[in-house]
Amino acid sequence: MGVKKFVYYFGDGKADGGAKMKELLGGKGANIAEMVNIGIPVPAGFTITTEVCNYYYQHGKKYPPGLKKEAETALRKIEKSMGSKFGDAKNPLLLSVRSGARVSMPGMMDTVLNIGLNDTTIKGLIEKTGNERFAYDAYRRFVNMYGDVVMGVKPRNDKEHDPFEEIIEAKKRKRRVVLDTDLTTEDLKELVVEYKEMIRQRLGRSFPEDPLEQLWGGIDAVFGSWNIPRAVSYRQIHGYPEDWGTATNVQAMVFGNMGNDSATGVAFTRDPATGENYFYGEYLTNAQGEDVVAGIRTPQPINRAKKVPKGMPTLEEEMPKLYNQLVGIRNKLEKHYREMQDIEFTIQQGRLWMLQTRTGKRTAAAAIKIAVEMVKEKLISKQEAITRVQPEQIDQLLHPMLDPKAAKQLIAKGLPASPGAAVGQVVFSAAEAEVWAKAGKKVILVRVETSPDDIRGMNVAQGILTSRGGMTSHAAVVARGMGKCCVAGCSGITVNYNKNQFSAGGGVVIKQGDYISLDGSKGEVYLGQVSKVEPQLTGEFKTFMNWVDEFRKMGVRTNADTPHDAGVARAFGAEGIGLTRTEHMFFEGRRIVAVREMILASDVEGRRRALSKILPMQREDFVGIFRAMAGLPVTIRTLDPPLHEFLPHTPAEVKELAKDLGVKPAEIEAKVNALAEANPMLGHRGCRLGIAYPEITEMQARAIFEAACIVTKQGKRVYPEVMIPLVGHVNELKMQKQIVIATAEEVMKKQGVKINYLVGTMIELPRAALTADQIATEAQFFSFGTNDLTQTTFGLSRDDAGRFLPMYVEQKILPSDPFVSLDVEGVGQLVQMGVAKGRSVRPDLKVGICGEHGGDPASVEFCHRIGLNYVSCSPYRVPIARLAAARAAIADLQAQQARKASRAKAAQTKKK
Amino acid sequence: MGVKKFVYYFGDGKADGGAKMKELLGGKGANIAEMVNIGIPVPAGFTITTEVCNYYYQHGKKYPPGLKKEAETALRKIEKSMGSKFGDAKNPLLLSVRSGARVSMPGMMDTVLNIGLNDTTIKGLIEKTGNERFAYDAYRRFVNMYGDVVMGVKPRNDKEHDPFEEIIEAKKRKRRVVLDTDLTTEDLKELVVEYKEMIRQRLGRSFPEDPLEQLWGGIDAVFGSWNIPRAVSYRQIHGYPEDWGTATNVQAMVFGNMGNDSATGVAFTRDPATGENYFYGEYLTNAQGEDVVAGIRTPQPINRAKKVPKGMPTLEEEMPKLYNQLVGIRNKLEKHYREMQDIEFTIQQGRLWMLQTRTGKRTAAAAIKIAVEMVKEKLISKQEAITRVQPEQIDQLLHPMLDPKAAKQLIAKGLPASPGAAVGQVVFSAAEAEVWAKAGKKVILVRVETSPDDIRGMNVAQGILTSRGGMTSHAAVVARGMGKCCVAGCSGITVNYNKNQFSAGGGVVIKQGDYISLDGSKGEVYLGQVSKVEPQLTGEFKTFMNWVDEFRKMGVRTNADTPHDAGVARAFGAEGIGLTRTEHMFFEGRRIVAVREMILASDVEGRRRALSKILPMQREDFVGIFRAMAGLPVTIRTLDPPLHEFLPHTPAEVKELAKDLGVKPAEIEAKVNALAEANPMLGHRGCRLGIAYPEITEMQARAIFEAACIVTKQGKRVYPEVMIPLVGHVNELKMQKQIVIATAEEVMKKQGVKINYLVGTMIELPRAALTADQIATEAQFFSFGTNDLTQTTFGLSRDDAGRFLPMYVEQKILPSDPFVSLDVEGVGQLVQMGVAKGRSVRPDLKVGICGEHGGDPASVEFCHRIGLNYVSCSPYRVPIARLAAARAAIADLQAQQARKASRAKAAQTKKK
Repeated sequence: MGVKKFVYYFGDGKADGGAKMKELLGGKGANIAEMVNIGIPVPAGFTITTEVCNYYYQHGKKYPPGLKKEAETALRKIEKSMGSKFGDAKNPLLLSVRSGARVSMPGMMDTVLNIGLNDTTIKGLIEKTGNERFAYDAYRRFVNMYGDVVMGVKPRNDKEHDPFEEIIEAKKRKRRVVLDTDLTTEDLKELVVEYKEMIRQRLGRSFPEDPLEQLWGGIDAVFGSWNIPRAVSYRQIHGYPEDWGTATNVQAMVFGNMGNDSATGVAFTRDPATGENYFYGEYLTNAQGEDVVAGIRTPQPINRAKKVPKGMPTLEEEMPKLYNQLVGIRNKLEKHYREMQDIEFTIQQGRLWMLQTRTGKRTAAAAIKIAVEMVKEKLISKQEAITRVQPEQIDQLLHPMLDPKAAKQLIAKGLPASPGAAVGQVVFSAAEAEVWAKAGKKVILVRVETSPDDIRGMNVAQGILTSRGGMTSHAAVVARGMGKCCVAGCSGITVNYNKNQFSAGGGVVIKQGDYISLDGSKGEVYLGQVSKVEPQLTGEFKTFMNWVDEFRKMGVRTNADTPHDAGVARAFGAEGIGLTRTEHMFFEGRRIVAVREMILASDVEGRRRALSKILPMQREDFVGIFRAMAGLPVTIRTLDPPLHEFLPHTPAEVKELAKDLGVKPAEIEAKVNALAEANPMLGHRGCRLGIAYPEITEMQARAIFEAACIVTKQGKRVYPEVMIPLVGHVNELKMQKQIVIATAEEVMKKQGVKINYLVGTMIELPRAALTADQIATEAQFFSFGTNDLTQTTFGLSRDDAGRFLPMYVEQKILPSDPFVSLDVEGVGQLVQMGVAKGRSVRPDLKVGICGEHGGDPASVEFCHRIGLNYVSCSPYRVPIARLAAARAAIADLQAQQARKASRAKAAQTKKK
Repeated sequence: MGVKKFVYYFGDGKADGGAKMKELLGGKGANIAEMVNIGIPVPAGFTITTEVCNYYYQHGKKYPPGLKKEAETALRKIEKSMGSKFGDAKNPLLLSVRSGARVSMPGMMDTVLNIGLNDTTIKGLIEKTGNERFAYDAYRRFVNMYGDVVMGVKPRNDKEHDPFEEIIEAKKRKRRVVLDTDLTTEDLKELVVEYKEMIRQRLGRSFPEDPLEQLWGGIDAVFGSWNIPRAVSYRQIHGYPEDWGTATNVQAMVFGNMGNDSATGVAFTRDPATGENYFYGEYLTNAQGEDVVAGIRTPQPINRAKKVPKGMPTLEEEMPKLYNQLVGIRNKLEKHYREMQDIEFTIQQGRLWMLQTRTGKRTAAAAIKIAVEMVKEKLISKQEAITRVQPEQIDQLLHPMLDPKAAKQLIAKGLPASPGAAVGQVVFSAAEAEVWAKAGKKVILVRVETSPDDIRGMNVAQGILTSRGGMTSHAAVVARGMGKCCVAGCSGITVNYNKNQFSAGGGVVIKQGDYISLDGSKGEVYLGQVSKVEPQLTGEFKTFMNWVDEFRKMGVRTNADTPHDAGVARAFGAEGIGLTRTEHMFFEGRRIVAVREMILASDVEGRRRALSKILPMQREDFVGIFRAMAGLPVTIRTLDPPLHEFLPHTPAEVKELAKDLGVKPAEIEAKVNALAEANPMLGHRGCRLGIAYPEITEMQARAIFEAACIVTKQGKRVYPEVMIPLVGHVNELKMQKQIVIATAEEVMKKQGVKINYLVGTMIELPRAALTADQIATEAQFFSFGTNDLTQTTFGLSRDDAGRFLPMYVEQKILPSDPFVSLDVEGVGQLVQMGVAKGRSVRPDLKVGICGEHGGDPASVEFCHRIGLNYVSCSPYRVPIARLAAARAAIADLQAQQARKASRAKAAQTKKK
């Protein structure tokens, strides 16, 4: 790393870095540099690169040689720019040290403020500001923060309180005051001394007075916080790799708490919850930035663009000139970045400083609204609009909302911090949330406010409710990131952790375990379980999805076993059914008795008798599905699970069945035992059943084609695609296909109806993919069953993997759960091979995927890349798959354009 | 098929066909043609090709146009050659119609003799032979055979006797005689009439008098017999494909039963049981060929080369001139074919006719002796010698023989029809044999004589004992083909089917279920269960195996878990161990208690405590194995099976263990339940265990390297290869390898010993093969675990496949059981891919196979072809694998030579 630059300076309208250097400087560092470059007022500072972070971890927490010198050169520049001097007794420069990874990880890593304060420089600060109270408040905050974050003074066990808290609480008790702000300057002065003494006693070493020692301690702490547990958890949840590393930003402090001409705030250039195009922000007068984000005081809105609580002054009213400057900056930033920005600002004694800008996190609804409107504003193209909405994100728009027509009792109203609906049982801690969720319960996490330590609990909760904090509080930001419903700052409720309950107005008390329902789009809290209704694709969402379909090349179908599911999926844009599992139908109502009779029959005749009872019911199922999908293809899979799955397992069930069928219980038990398997996943199932009992396949084919004839006669178009499961050898398909075709021809002849149908197979065994060229001689279509293909390729039973798969993901043995996101390296290789081999003998082979991966965006992208005709997924994931497919197609276009451009450039160069 | 020739004539020293046309003319047809061409006296005839057979089945049992005309033209040639006329009243030509597939299927298909006899031609036959009795005997045999085989007159049910038998038995009762030969000419004449009448009554149509109708009926029957159940079974057992088809040979009849100057016999040019080089054969005077083969009369030897029962005249003595002619023919045939021949001859009124010659079936011992001696006789090369012994065949030489030193009671002596030893319980029917074998019992099938219907029963029996029939009887021929021990013609015993028992001399009575032991090499029958001893590689076998190793390119190792197995395998030529399963050791003696203690431990410390008890025992195991394999590599696999396999499962065992460990039974039951898996094959096993519990891998590594140090210090060379099982992702191997290396380095340092060791992995999951290029960056060797790879590639649990896999093989969905012979198309593709990818990143990667396929010749051939370094198989299969590997290498050489020759030829042509 000899010639590498480790430190990037910014300040005075000129920066070493720029927006394109996010990987090196982190998001925050790159954006600050960019802001400086476009003339935005930013306190001077420098960024230490992410490469230093990686070096730090690869070299036993040592820095590369030369770093210190570079940093100290930059420090001199800051001093020059800000007109103050680090460690100076008269005019001291104070510094902040902040983390900044490639992407924002709000609140996950450490920050140290006010570095440079000591018993000498405090005097300069007092002199400079003429505000002794402010100075000592900063000093005691600094000692507290530095002692905690850098020196590691924490409670020693669960029972101990925070030692700094204890000292300040003791002080307040002694002074008989309630709020920190009621403490006198003298009190704050004493706190500094007491904090330092406590640190010395606990650690056996003194609080560092040397500003440079303070600075490097702060930098160590920030790089160190890249690997603290909550940061690691956050990266795991979001799938961010370890080796991205964080940059560290050292920047001159500016103070929003230097009096009433100072303030600090955060803002979004548009509304991050709804996407509406107005300047949205919150601020606190005479406060530090952390106060806004931490949600300790409920902040004021910057303007009245949206109705705000009465009596709350706005920035526009309090400091109109500065507000206008801020609006100018907002416009400049949006135009420059062509993206909604999340900004932090501080007003120090009447002067506006921008601390940060970054692409703002937003809800799915906001993402779509902003994207659609920016297209209309001609800021971005349709292509760009589509690439700006993450497929996974729109999931939150596709889930049921509280039924507006349901009778419901409103008990409180807060901020609509993250939209969606949540119904669940109340818990009051993240730990409880995890325990309850593990037990299969749906919970709503209720907190006064949340902290980064609550991440895991928030992740498993249905929704989050806080009594404090604004739209940019931790709870709100994190919940939106997770696409999880959140009502924040719900001041009408009082949370009592000791009693495990909260009270709302009108004497309503909600205890742990009680049900409540949240409407995150309205900020409303309801008593009990409110029913939900299906979401609809309307407005900007509809426009957006129409654009999506303009770019999309790959079809999207659904996996649906009922007419209802088929209808939902169709409304979401499904272009047919990719998988109908017939076995679910076998369990419905009384038909399971006939199914069991079939299984227990001792010969073909007995089986045929029982199957003839099932036939009319199956036919009825298919009539319903064909009608719901009229005009579109419907893929129906023949019976797949091993027969023992249909048999009763408890003695009581056995007894009942014995009575139903008029046989002895022992006879049924004997059959249950005879059919038991060591490895059912690899047992007598799939087409192996239809080969052993051809009469089952025949009945199912009959039901399909009789239903198709009925629906055709009703004037609807029907395109059945009969799919034979678990084929490993072409001969299996050949035999089953013969039965299907013979039955189809017989039924069509009898009914006088001609049905266009196909017979194909699931490719869900490695051998099927490996011999796809043989199988395609018989199959008219392939559908990759990637669930089973993943199980067999990995030799991993999904039912049993729970014991070690989470550990595998945690220990990074596997990059992710292969049942969630298709393992492109292994399973994907087989899929690709299957497609290529299949099409080598049947170029028009229709190929799809119907495993759960069909609804996973990364997997959909892979399916597009290898040229599948369609993906099939659960109804609620159909729009996600459509979007993912469109984004993949756009990526292709962009790659093409890039190649074209580079060719053109090369040609140009040649010409010269 | 327009211009194709369907009929190939032979006769008068000239034939249309030749030895190289076996595929078209069948083995018999091609060899007859060849015999004719080299001047051997053969009755004239013609062969209808196997293509006609396939055409016949593909066209609803119709013949191709033109066939009849060709056949009848050939028939005219036969008449000319034999000087008689088909259907002529004065000098009638009689014909035989026989099947003849590409390989011999003894007795499986139909034959019709004496075609052309009717009430007119019988007169001519009488006139020509002057032997009315012979003529009518032929006539009644013909009507019987034709009525049965062609017209299908059979018992209608199990209770009915053969209708022809009933008539002849009635006749004998009426005449008060016992033997057929006691019947008068008049009786035989009556039989013809009565047979015909019975046929008319049963079938409602008359016996055909028209010779041409008879001929085509016979041809139909032969082609038809290709698909009768016993023929289909035989092909399945031997793996012959359906579409080979059979040829049909129509040939002039010659009669060995025209009086005492006539005879018929079969002979082998060398002894088929021992391989000794003398002319071995049997004949019957005044008999038809079928009489010898069917074993109804015990035939006479053709000479006294081997000691023969006293009082039996030989052909050499009875007809010395003809015998000398036969010896001349024997010498000519062996020189011509350079192979031991199985011939059939008939002497008709003093004239010798050869009916058939084919490569003789032989025992493994004979195959090796003949091959070795023919090399010494300079008849064949070493290469050829090796290609003449089937690897599967030598299996019979590698299994234990009756202990010569064991005390045993000889109860009878018969012919040493097929060598080897068999110990089992006596059963008296093929059906019983199947039932008992299915129940897991070892049976010996005892019959008066066997028939083709007994094939399946013979196949499941340990050995076969018959009281009648010679060395060429059905039982003897089939048993030798199967490599199964057989004592035939054991006239000292009397079988009583009704009582399900047989009696031997001295009042010994053996009942169904009693144990006997057979020595097939000596023809001896012993009472009870005689103990066995290991076979040894000595004499010609040793010479032969030395030659094998001269050609072999691929290494052969063994799978062995104990020093004893390792020793046996080494004696058989194993060049190391390819797989030592450590888990078997876990069950031995009291150590299972420590293993269970380890599993039940609630934390790492508890597990370490238990593991420290297992360590010294595992170390001792490895010391033993390393010593047995000193100087050769030993591959040791770390723990593989899921832990629940080690836990007790019955309440009594649970209780005992609870007592041992001082815990409550409920605690153990809870753990057993917690560890239960839905699909253990795909569960928490293999390296997944070592990753969850690194201390297990560490203990095993410690045991391996401590043992290696001990044995090294004893002055022996040790080459451990530590193998990590069930790797699916390179990271798994990486983590386990780190543990192994760290432990190895620590142990070696402590012991002051340097061990050359490797760390590698099993490739037994599809994903491992697919990502072998990644895995090879960590693995120093690969060993394909084709058992599990077959299970996962097919999605087929070996434990559960029994319910449908046999059906799959039977219905030809799969060509064979993929757990027996490697599925080259599917699993083989993964193996090949794994090798190529692995070597792409590590060109010197050592690659082997350690599934059970390592001992299957076809799979070994595949392993050679794709360039594996070695195969590893069970000790007793080591010589088989060596031979298979040598044959594969020779096939390569031959292909090279062929390419070279064809290039030389091409160059030659160009020159001209």
